[in-house]
Amino acid sequence: MPSSHFQPVALEHASRLINHGPTVLITTRHGAVRNIMAAAWSMPVEFSPPRISVVIDKHTYTRELMQASGGFGLLIPGVAFADQTYAVGSVSGREGDKFTRYGIATLDGPVLGLPLVETGMAAWMECRWIPEKHTEDAYDTCFAEVVSAAADSRIFAGGHWHIHADNRDLHTLHHLGAGTFAVAGAPIRAQAR
Amino acid sequence: MPSSHFQPVALEHASRLINHGPTVLITTRHGAVRNIMAAAWSMPVEFSPPRISVVIDKHTYTRELMQASGGFGLLIPGVAFADQTYAVGSVSGREGDKFTRYGIATLDGPVLGLPLVETGMAAWMECRWIPEKHTEDAYDTCFAEVVSAAADSRIFAGGHWHIHADNRDLHTLHHLGAGTFAVAGAPIRAQAR
Repeated sequence: MPSSHFQPVALEHASRLINHGPTVLITTRHGAVRNIMAAAWSMPVEFSPPRISVVIDKHTYTRELMQASGGFGLLIPGVAFADQTYAVGSVSGREGDKFTRYGIATLDGPVLGLPLVETGMAAWMECRWIPEKHTEDAYDTCFAEVVSAAADSRIFAGGHWHIHADNRDLHTLHHLGAGTFAVAGAPIRAQAR
Repeated sequence: MPSSHFQPVALEHASRLINHGPTVLITTRHGAVRNIMAAAWSMPVEFSPPRISVVIDKHTYTRELMQASGGFGLLIPGVAFADQTYAVGSVSGREGDKFTRYGIATLDGPVLGLPLVETGMAAWMECRWIPEKHTEDAYDTCFAEVVSAAADSRIFAGGHWHIHADNRDLHTLHHLGAGTFAVAGAPIRAQAR
């Protein structure tokens, strides 16, 4: 088994993991069942405490499991996981366990015990659902607080992203539509005016 | 004056403009004053009708002008506009008109008359505010419906992004923090499994 490069991320830095708009994977577990789906629409809403919002359609299995269990995992896939990211976003977990179907190994989250993934991921977090019935009903928008986070130290360390040519497999995916993803490339630094 | 490459975007495609998580600029106008600020946190919440959410801190001048006027412009800057994007995100419009200060030319939006920008932008949209007092108070999260949109046809045409080496200046910015932006690079296409 390959050794993991994952290191804990301080909670006050957790929102930075999705600050740049990557496509994410949402994992859930309730009783004996678990699920994983892709979500292009998520964003931070606060740094401290770290809070996020994510659009999870009310007809999805993920939404049902999240509301039943009170939390979800959020994974940030890298380039090496693009095919699986699109695959798990294209079929419903009601048809069978997608982790098994796509050979995705999991570990249990440290706080909420959610199914998390490290191989192929740049980072993960566990999120505690904050019920907001109106926005869930009207906009499928679900709020949550991040309660644990970790990242592959080869691309996120010291509270910052380090995107460069040598860690391409971990560069984040940004869904343009229909299985095509822009890849977050080498950063530029704005000059003060 | 350079000819514009901007073409209208069908409203059912408007949410795709921010599907991949770019950093955006929010413009506002109320009476004789106008403003522009950067926002890293926005996302679509629905394709049709095209609805989005964006985090606008309740202490900002933009929030005040948006609530007073009922709408905002949303611009999607490209690489060529990175310095100005960071600059307008770093000072308040209460200190003076940032369009003038940074030499940013505007046009009037076709539906709401909001100040829009084309030079340096990949796309723009006009958004009508949907008041949601609770989420605005609790999460600074503001909802809106897109009522007009256009994009530079060299990078977004036929309802799709076309990101390649020849239109680098229009590649979208994805804020990593403190003025450093990942740039949306050449796309990859997921293989079905």
